[in-house]
Amino acid sequence: MDNKAYLVQMKSSGVQGPARSVSAKALLGNGVHGSRGPTKTKSRRQRWEVKASAMAENTLNPIRAIVDGMKLTPNPEKPMISLSIGDPTVFGNLPTDGSVLQAMKDAIDCQQYNGYAPSVGYLKSRQAVANFYSRPEAPLQAEDVILTSGCSQAIELAISVLCNPGDNILVPRPGFSLYKTLAVSMGIEVKLYNLLPEKSWEMDLQHMESLIDERTSCLIVTNPSNPCGSVFSKDHLQKVLRVASKHCVPILADEIYSDMVSGSHCPSLASLSSDVPVLSCGGLAKRWLVPGWRMGWILIHDRNDIFGPEIRQGLVKLSQRILGACTIVQGALESILNDTPQSFYSNTISFLKVKHRQRTHLCFPACLCAVLQVGIEMDHFPGFKNDVDFTERLVTEQSVFCLPASAFEYPNFFRIVVTVPEELMVEACSRIRGFCQRYYRPPSCDGNDLDQ
Amino acid sequence: MDNKAYLVQMKSSGVQGPARSVSAKALLGNGVHGSRGPTKTKSRRQRWEVKASAMAENTLNPIRAIVDGMKLTPNPEKPMISLSIGDPTVFGNLPTDGSVLQAMKDAIDCQQYNGYAPSVGYLKSRQAVANFYSRPEAPLQAEDVILTSGCSQAIELAISVLCNPGDNILVPRPGFSLYKTLAVSMGIEVKLYNLLPEKSWEMDLQHMESLIDERTSCLIVTNPSNPCGSVFSKDHLQKVLRVASKHCVPILADEIYSDMVSGSHCPSLASLSSDVPVLSCGGLAKRWLVPGWRMGWILIHDRNDIFGPEIRQGLVKLSQRILGACTIVQGALESILNDTPQSFYSNTISFLKVKHRQRTHLCFPACLCAVLQVGIEMDHFPGFKNDVDFTERLVTEQSVFCLPASAFEYPNFFRIVVTVPEELMVEACSRIRGFCQRYYRPPSCDGNDLDQ
Repeated sequence: MDNKAYLVQMKSSGVQGPARSVSAKALLGNGVHGSRGPTKTKSRRQRWEVKASAMAENTLNPIRAIVDGMKLTPNPEKPMISLSIGDPTVFGNLPTDGSVLQAMKDAIDCQQYNGYAPSVGYLKSRQAVANFYSRPEAPLQAEDVILTSGCSQAIELAISVLCNPGDNILVPRPGFSLYKTLAVSMGIEVKLYNLLPEKSWEMDLQHMESLIDERTSCLIVTNPSNPCGSVFSKDHLQKVLRVASKHCVPILADEIYSDMVSGSHCPSLASLSSDVPVLSCGGLAKRWLVPGWRMGWILIHDRNDIFGPEIRQGLVKLSQRILGACTIVQGALESILNDTPQSFYSNTISFLKVKHRQRTHLCFPACLCAVLQVGIEMDHFPGFKNDVDFTERLVTEQSVFCLPASAFEYPNFFRIVVTVPEELMVEACSRIRGFCQRYYRPPSCDGNDLDQ
Repeated sequence: MDNKAYLVQMKSSGVQGPARSVSAKALLGNGVHGSRGPTKTKSRRQRWEVKASAMAENTLNPIRAIVDGMKLTPNPEKPMISLSIGDPTVFGNLPTDGSVLQAMKDAIDCQQYNGYAPSVGYLKSRQAVANFYSRPEAPLQAEDVILTSGCSQAIELAISVLCNPGDNILVPRPGFSLYKTLAVSMGIEVKLYNLLPEKSWEMDLQHMESLIDERTSCLIVTNPSNPCGSVFSKDHLQKVLRVASKHCVPILADEIYSDMVSGSHCPSLASLSSDVPVLSCGGLAKRWLVPGWRMGWILIHDRNDIFGPEIRQGLVKLSQRILGACTIVQGALESILNDTPQSFYSNTISFLKVKHRQRTHLCFPACLCAVLQVGIEMDHFPGFKNDVDFTERLVTEQSVFCLPASAFEYPNFFRIVVTVPEELMVEACSRIRGFCQRYYRPPSCDGNDLDQ
């Protein structure tokens, strides 16, 4: 082949050097920014002054803010037991299924998944998710699925596409702190609607509705709830859909825990919606017990075509800012969804059921998640200022760490994870009981307390 | 164990139901948002009107915008050859090393990497990157490394932490389009400084300096250059550092291609800096030929403590918005960096050298990257409007697709990737030559052209 000839024909190739200079300069005139005249006098920095951006300053993680400020020095006589981390894998007693690991190794061996995937994920992998979650009342096609780097990116994309700075979103209290972290960092206002502990943490729909205004661009529904572990009934979900429909507010349904509940107890919000458009966020993290793999997704439910092409295209565009999930996990996804044996899922749920029933006596059919919200009647613990103080001293004295629920906008509760191994859970409960027995003051003692 | 007693002590547990209602209501009064009184009359939406956010609207991908608008119908008589995709894995002729695959499988098998990692990555993996890139003149500790979901997230975090809306950043032209995509979506102005084709695409430092003003919060230097494939000399990098130092502008060094050059030709910017703080962005994508795995990093170089703790903490906080890289790749990272045989790297570089030398006759010692920028002397191709028209008709007639460099802010060039297999490259060059021979008009024909 005569490359020389090719080069002569195409002699404008820039890397060739000086020969290119004339027409290159001509080209430069076409640029976006104008003249290259003598350096203008401009106001410039005279000394170094590099500051973190407002966005960095406004990115607040309440869990870190609270936990990093706590004195977490365990009692040296007792080994530390942490009930604070919402990670089912941390104790090694809940491994993922062998078939999931094999799917990953197959994806590596075939060497088809090392290159760039489309920013929204491989079509084949999106199709697999669509097939897995499609229901007759809420059908899904591959184009309704956007794969993301974990559920956190799914939530970030969903908020980003629906909300402008100055808008507001409705967020459950207590609730997962990431919604607020993301929204505030983007200049979006957060309005907290209450969950009602006296109604198994159902949403306070009246309160929710009272918060809606014309700048409300998204209603977040977490079902099952994190940190409460509660599951909403079909009837309750229909009611929240009526609120959203009445005021024309789209829903971000965080359903990352949705498959951690057995049988028909946990319908998806989208399966009940006749008009309200829903972005359902989920992923492999919880049900397949691999949160570190960062495989999440958005399922776009929009049967009445209210989102229209604009929101879909917006999601695609936003997905191109940071490419999504690791291609090896994407390559394994079809097999993970289709080949994981049913026994794996049911074993996990049985484990959680046993945890709840045997250890806490708090089992509800609709409460089978990995976390549990526990209240502190502060009136009866006069020696403590708040939940942070309470959990801090629980560490100092008993070497048990529970997450203070101030991190979820819900002071004077704490959250425990129930996915720790049997013997640790028994020991931890025993120590918490001892701690409470020591400091609890029954109502009749109130008068005496004043004298102490 | 007596769980009943524990429950009595802690009877404020919310999921217990109605018994909790009184103090729960008391708690609600502590919330961030005020009263739950009767629903106020507010202006609310009466009909559905869901629009994509301004950020989604402003997230523009010029490659997609241009390519999606092209008629890419190949000549049915010739099989399509794409020289457009900057993905070295797409043709399967450049597989990653077997040791890299084995490291991944080991990370899967050990089951230690399924849970959440810290948002900045495992300490062990950060240490491995620090060790790999540490140099006596630019030492790195684990805390100087932030692991990210690919180099795109590294760039996004670096811009996010340094820049506020209304600031401007300096970006090379031609240059990788992602900088502008990210910046514009965040309300940050982009100022393009020229690369000089007549000087092997060196930076036009005078032009660069003329663009700096007091709102310039970041200078992006891509070395080696994408899409030009050029490598800057030590002397040239020292000059750009002087510009940055004079005007106190920190540098984002995109060095993702830095290890694709043999020997000592490509010093890192940080290794030459005595004062200018540098955020160096890189990752596994190019050198280890696994761009889909999304393992990137930021190396924080700040020997004069100009960034200080604020930028470091800002990066940590921003990393918590979307958790970073897949834990399996993180788990394999130490082994990938330490155990990949030297022969793998040198084989890749030899391949690229051969490509450049044998096929394009454009080899410079400092130009060994996977891409090449080719100019079109439009005066001699009067039948074409621009680079988009040229490359479009190259597809229609010859079934060869090259990326028009308008996508890199550099009209009337096109970019070809040289990582395609031998026989396809020969065939593609032959077709391009034929196409050029057909349409090229030499200078002496200009007069005749007017009559045509």
